[in-house]
Amino acid sequence: MSDAEAFDAVDVIRTKRDGGRLSDGQIDWVIDAYTRGVVAEEQMSALAMAILLNGMERAEIARWTAAMIASGERMDFSGLSRPTVDKHSTGGVGDKITLPLAPLVAACGLAVPQLSGRGLGHTGGTLDKLEAIPGWRAALSNDEMLRQLDEVGAVVCQAGSGLAPADRKLYALRDVTGTVEAIPLIASSIMSKKIAEGTGALVLDVKVGSGAFMKDAERAGELARTMVELGTDAGVRTRALLTDMSTPLGLTAGNALEVREAVEVLAGGGPADVVELTVALAREMLEAAGVSGTAGVDPADVLASGAAMDSWRAMIAAQGGDPDAPLPVARHTEQVLAPADGVLVELDALAVGVAAWRLGAGRARKEDPVQAGAGVQIHAKPGAVVRAGEPLMTLHTDTPERFERAREALGDAVVVAPEGSRPPERALILDRVT
Amino acid sequence: MSDAEAFDAVDVIRTKRDGGRLSDGQIDWVIDAYTRGVVAEEQMSALAMAILLNGMERAEIARWTAAMIASGERMDFSGLSRPTVDKHSTGGVGDKITLPLAPLVAACGLAVPQLSGRGLGHTGGTLDKLEAIPGWRAALSNDEMLRQLDEVGAVVCQAGSGLAPADRKLYALRDVTGTVEAIPLIASSIMSKKIAEGTGALVLDVKVGSGAFMKDAERAGELARTMVELGTDAGVRTRALLTDMSTPLGLTAGNALEVREAVEVLAGGGPADVVELTVALAREMLEAAGVSGTAGVDPADVLASGAAMDSWRAMIAAQGGDPDAPLPVARHTEQVLAPADGVLVELDALAVGVAAWRLGAGRARKEDPVQAGAGVQIHAKPGAVVRAGEPLMTLHTDTPERFERAREALGDAVVVAPEGSRPPERALILDRVT
Repeated sequence: MSDAEAFDAVDVIRTKRDGGRLSDGQIDWVIDAYTRGVVAEEQMSALAMAILLNGMERAEIARWTAAMIASGERMDFSGLSRPTVDKHSTGGVGDKITLPLAPLVAACGLAVPQLSGRGLGHTGGTLDKLEAIPGWRAALSNDEMLRQLDEVGAVVCQAGSGLAPADRKLYALRDVTGTVEAIPLIASSIMSKKIAEGTGALVLDVKVGSGAFMKDAERAGELARTMVELGTDAGVRTRALLTDMSTPLGLTAGNALEVREAVEVLAGGGPADVVELTVALAREMLEAAGVSGTAGVDPADVLASGAAMDSWRAMIAAQGGDPDAPLPVARHTEQVLAPADGVLVELDALAVGVAAWRLGAGRARKEDPVQAGAGVQIHAKPGAVVRAGEPLMTLHTDTPERFERAREALGDAVVVAPEGSRPPERALILDRVT
Repeated sequence: MSDAEAFDAVDVIRTKRDGGRLSDGQIDWVIDAYTRGVVAEEQMSALAMAILLNGMERAEIARWTAAMIASGERMDFSGLSRPTVDKHSTGGVGDKITLPLAPLVAACGLAVPQLSGRGLGHTGGTLDKLEAIPGWRAALSNDEMLRQLDEVGAVVCQAGSGLAPADRKLYALRDVTGTVEAIPLIASSIMSKKIAEGTGALVLDVKVGSGAFMKDAERAGELARTMVELGTDAGVRTRALLTDMSTPLGLTAGNALEVREAVEVLAGGGPADVVELTVALAREMLEAAGVSGTAGVDPADVLASGAAMDSWRAMIAAQGGDPDAPLPVARHTEQVLAPADGVLVELDALAVGVAAWRLGAGRARKEDPVQAGAGVQIHAKPGAVVRAGEPLMTLHTDTPERFERAREALGDAVVVAPEGSRPPERALILDRVT
């Protein structure tokens, strides 16, 4: 620390270590000094662990988030002719909802800026999915993004490196230091980028269950409330749904496989759970943006009308993609068979996510490539009656040596119970936080 | 982490973060991998914070200590003709006890290997004090050390870099990450070096009070018990005294000033508290080494006989020092005067330590030099009747611009109460742990 620094890193760490509240000055300084490299990685990781174990108050989290926003640039959507509304999912298996949702909400008259990331670990990334479409590109300039928002109403693109750089640095650190799971840090990481992005309204899809970050509803609810408070305090109309992630969403997990399923939904078909969640989130987005009811638009009708499909095609084409090009298909497939006659009562989301990841749909390190065609296709969901030897899933990969480890991941994923059994009753939408 | 690693750093961190017990395998791996640089500084600091906040069980601390010992070499004193006994103080203000104690115990027939460090912060280092003696050198080879132990019976020298290198690396990290205060880490840091050093018996002087690491007796007691258990489990006969550090020991804080006071004690004079603690610790050391009573030696008699002074002169001379050379004197002095008539009821140890440090007796960074003559000379201790304007302390420094910040440190150090008042009753020796 040079004499010119206003605070001392060890003092800041000690304050949180001893259960105290960080002052606004301490928070502003530590985030700025960390971004500048004056607070070292090992100091920030000790602070992150102290935050994880001792928590933060609402005002502290708000200040922490504001300091992360201040570390970078802010975007401005106020010149757009449409109101903006964004959606963020905390990540799940088979969660392709952004793909039909963004064009659907655009078709309802709003502007949907989706600054997305790539997948790491067992949850896929929206950019990886769209990159399965020949020609589609994730990197847009700010001007391109604004023009597309005005003309098409929906854009899914890579977040620029200028938004909340402190968060990017901190996220990479948390990943290797066992400090990812701190609710104040998760909430401020997500919300700093969403607030800096400048959206007027935001709907959060907080996943709960084996395939999610948050395994239990209590912690998921705490995360949802924390984020809704942060957004509201920052002037973003924010609400959240808590949704089930104990089993995969829809019937696919993997990049091109999920794009195909999203297109089915836009065409008026697709799995019921994907349709239900897409429409429910669209309604929340309209309401958050203040155009529900008054405008008299029901997303279910817009989806049925084909207008969402038109928006999808325009959105893909605007980013160089060919919506009519055939999607990549993996070179090898293998089937997973039902072990017995009966009722499928469990299909574990985490296991399917890890299997898709191991097949090549995801990456272990951020510099790894992904396989567009790899993943898991699901033929039976919980509640289905199955016969021994009948295919439950098809595994897809370009590299067949990956089948073995994918099967290992699926070892305990499937539970078949005697005929007449029923899977545990689970609503798709568990709770709503406004 | 390469595939060849047996464990994963994030898994180890998570185990402790979630309140679990680290397995022996995890502990052995994480210490070894940290020493090799495979576990990064930011990972170890997150783990250290989790240990600080979630604690460790006795067996975990023992394994952690063993792993730190295994990171380096061990010494062997078994070839010596005398039994070995070591003493360690957790550090205080004016704590020059090692200086008279080592030669006193040597004069009682034991071998006292004192592998010491330099001061950092407000507590002085024994090597810094002895380096005030012209010609004296701290660095000895192992052979020189063993020869001196056999011939003189006492050696105070710099610990070689081969003992517990993991501890050296971890200590530097804890210093900048707010994780110094974890009892399992303090105890294992001290004990790993003492056990690796190979002493047969060990007496710990655990300081309690404002000038000590441990501000309250409860935590000091926990530290003392933890260290006594660690030593005992490792086959070192270990005991501890808890001693008061709310006011400085003796009448001096500073390198040459403290050497002069130690020589007064060896000559049969010196402040009563320094004499009392020196003799008490010497008795504990004899008892721990198993020679008390049977040998019929009382350290108080040996001190009075002048034999301890002979050992001191031999010990200093063996390391190139001239015991008769005049000690360095600071170029500038200023006095701190009593603010009122009355009874001195408080003279705060931490404030005096910080003042001595700022005058140049200590260092802010480990590469800084120290001033041999700098420090604080105390003229009145708690309980003394004082008159307004009478000198309470003399400040010594070679660099007079330091007086101002030293006086700032002493701002609230002195409390003078109306005549007839008494300072809080405090025993010098508070407790004993065996």
